Amino acid sequence: MTALCDLAATEAAAHIATGEIGAEELMRACLARIAEREGEVQAFTFIDADRALVEARRADAVRREGKGVGPLHGVPVAIKDIIDTADMPTEHGSPVFAGRRPAKDAQCVTALRDAGAIILGKTVTTELATLTPGKTRNPHNPRHTPGGSSSGSAAGLAAGFFPLALATQTGGSVIRPASFCGICGIKPTFGLISRSGVLLQSHTLDTIGVYGRSVEDLALAVDALSAQDASDPVSYPRSRPDHRPITMSDVPVPPLFAYVKTPAWEEHGDKRMHAAFAELVEALGKQVEEIPIASLERATAWARIVQGAENLAYYGPLLEQAPAKISKGLTDRLNAARSIDALSYIGAIRGRETAYAVIEEVLTNYTAILTPAAAGPAPEGLGSTGNPVFNAPWTYLGVPCVTLPLLEVDGMPLGVQLVGLRRDDGRLLRTARWLEGFVRALDS
Amino acid sequence: MTALCDLAATEAAAHIATGEIGAEELMRACLARIAEREGEVQAFTFIDADRALVEARRADAVRREGKGVGPLHGVPVAIKDIIDTADMPTEHGSPVFAGRRPAKDAQCVTALRDAGAIILGKTVTTELATLTPGKTRNPHNPRHTPGGSSSGSAAGLAAGFFPLALATQTGGSVIRPASFCGICGIKPTFGLISRSGVLLQSHTLDTIGVYGRSVEDLALAVDALSAQDASDPVSYPRSRPDHRPITMSDVPVPPLFAYVKTPAWEEHGDKRMHAAFAELVEALGKQVEEIPIASLERATAWARIVQGAENLAYYGPLLEQAPAKISKGLTDRLNAARSIDALSYIGAIRGRETAYAVIEEVLTNYTAILTPAAAGPAPEGLGSTGNPVFNAPWTYLGVPCVTLPLLEVDGMPLGVQLVGLRRDDGRLLRTARWLEGFVRALDS
Repeated sequence: MTALCDLAATEAAAHIATGEIGAEELMRACLARIAEREGEVQAFTFIDADRALVEARRADAVRREGKGVGPLHGVPVAIKDIIDTADMPTEHGSPVFAGRRPAKDAQCVTALRDAGAIILGKTVTTELATLTPGKTRNPHNPRHTPGGSSSGSAAGLAAGFFPLALATQTGGSVIRPASFCGICGIKPTFGLISRSGVLLQSHTLDTIGVYGRSVEDLALAVDALSAQDASDPVSYPRSRPDHRPITMSDVPVPPLFAYVKTPAWEEHGDKRMHAAFAELVEALGKQVEEIPIASLERATAWARIVQGAENLAYYGPLLEQAPAKISKGLTDRLNAARSIDALSYIGAIRGRETAYAVIEEVLTNYTAILTPAAAGPAPEGLGSTGNPVFNAPWTYLGVPCVTLPLLEVDGMPLGVQLVGLRRDDGRLLRTARWLEGFVRALDS
Repeated sequence: MTALCDLAATEAAAHIATGEIGAEELMRACLARIAEREGEVQAFTFIDADRALVEARRADAVRREGKGVGPLHGVPVAIKDIIDTADMPTEHGSPVFAGRRPAKDAQCVTALRDAGAIILGKTVTTELATLTPGKTRNPHNPRHTPGGSSSGSAAGLAAGFFPLALATQTGGSVIRPASFCGICGIKPTFGLISRSGVLLQSHTLDTIGVYGRSVEDLALAVDALSAQDASDPVSYPRSRPDHRPITMSDVPVPPLFAYVKTPAWEEHGDKRMHAAFAELVEALGKQVEEIPIASLERATAWARIVQGAENLAYYGPLLEQAPAKISKGLTDRLNAARSIDALSYIGAIRGRETAYAVIEEVLTNYTAILTPAAAGPAPEGLGSTGNPVFNAPWTYLGVPCVTLPLLEVDGMPLGVQLVGLRRDDGRLLRTARWLEGFVRALDS
């Protein structure tokens, strides 16, 4: 039997709504698991167990009084520490922001609370959500990186500390840690979830994502999170909630996947990852065709230019104010970005729609793109969070990406990434659910 | 009595709708005036009198048959030659595009035809809508510049060639020529009129505007032009038509103007312009207060960076392909922009919302900003189109600007510019109509 703290968010929410399990009971199970493994995993920067229990008891009381429950009523959620919370510190993984306490919740945190979720704590991010690692370890093997920058959210969910968590991606920070830690993750369409109240490092790339234990968990959370917000200029209107019903509907015809190795495949891909994908593709048989997308090479280069230039715009002032508090790695990367000229930057911004047109063309013939979520399993060592090269072009393109923990290599998990059309997150999740079921049927 | 070709568009449209005057009659009056003065003014790059007469006769037939008429039925309109027309050449004022014939109309041209307008011809633009002048002369004195880049649209309207014309502004290309030629002009809120099918020189600044003979003319045209268009990423939805009724409604209280001399006042402003404004401000009495907006200095600098970098992105490739066909002035400006780094550009882009917040603050206390439309009357000589420094910061801010031909200096006209809040073009036009009436009452 699954331990309470290992339940999927959709299951937990359904049981809490009927009173089959109590929110307090679930919270105590999560806290017990945290007590047991947090010393090893180190997913949290802040946790307030007493407050979480008070809120869980209040959630149970509300339900008993028949006041009605939201879709996430009583479900513990963890928040990456670059996302503002009014009742907990938000330190951005940097000594520059030590002790920072924001005045109000980020819009996405408000949305979660509004759906009934209980914010359990803040999770470790790499330095300013870039490449310099935090303290978190991979729960599958503490000598391996959990990936980054959403290290604590991914590792904590994998360890059973909470059933849902918020993450963010500018290069590969949602999908790569999910792949390394063996959980489900979505980086939705750029603009779907408001970034208001979230540390800004690149206004054209930063995207909020979600971790969960199943594809349905991701749809549940995305529906709760996806309200339009005028304070984020890239937020757009949409009819909602619409993801979960689409996700749970049957596919009208079996999907046909475009298997895209990406230009990084040979140079950066781990041989064991190559083999695991070959096996999956063989199992999918006629439902997959390998196709090249040459323009991804330019997209990868453009993503690097955009991220470099915008990082410098947002983090350059910190480097000037507090150079001793910025890591050498980040300092070097920011200084390197000073040589990017406006012409290259504008070219990289303008290239996006041209590059996206190619994806649109591909996805008239295929249901979704199937591609690695990471270069391989989580590398050994805690000095690096791994390479985001299998993620950065997709982030740049603003397309929704889902990763599923379907593969395994030497006892470590490895994600399969699916990519869809912008603003078509629901159907991408539906395709992901199909693949989840297909691989489960293979294994049984 | 006003000659037919000097009628305002609203008057002409009203008379055509009732059959009081014929579209053909109006077109013949315009063509007669063109025959009389085009040799001196040189407003057109292309005109097809026969086709215009055919279309005018067809318009009269449609009306007689009782088929219903649009708001611009039978009204001749001229189009700046950087705006695509399917039935006429569009050469962008550059030998690079000599003989170019676009396959289809720009969205704004389609919208005009859809409202019943007849496209009479294409008007002279400066080279690629930048600073190197075309052949057009000022109809008030042919030894003076008409301003630019919308030179032919402004001069032709002032000479009585057509009652409405399309212009565009990236620095000061709508408002400055209107001021120099003594006509009404509007550069509406950034994104109000779709730029689809218009030469792109700066995606964050380019704005389509309108020339007319009265404030009501501007409202009439803006209503016809302002449909949302998904193919222009900055186009936004709005309820329409809504400008003309608001424009023609009474002001609820007499307006209070913020008189803003701008940081360019001393260094660039003509002494005669200073004196003319002092007189207007004195006449307005308690309805105007002078206030400084220091942040306009930064806005002016940022506008220069954005325009330089984006011009290079769009025109740099032309310079590489056909260096001999680009003027020395533009070549030098493009090459100078190569030194703009991405950090400065992103800073200039990010500065806009901060700078706009100041305008929003000012316009909680004042109805509109009152400010010069140009540094002075049209300068003598045809080698320069004048200085856009009194326009560029407002373009950068994306705010609506209206100029009215209310002042005169040494026999040459001089515009008064009103500036309002973004997406509040209707009320800005209403305030402009109030000022138009106020000055008319003074003069009589």
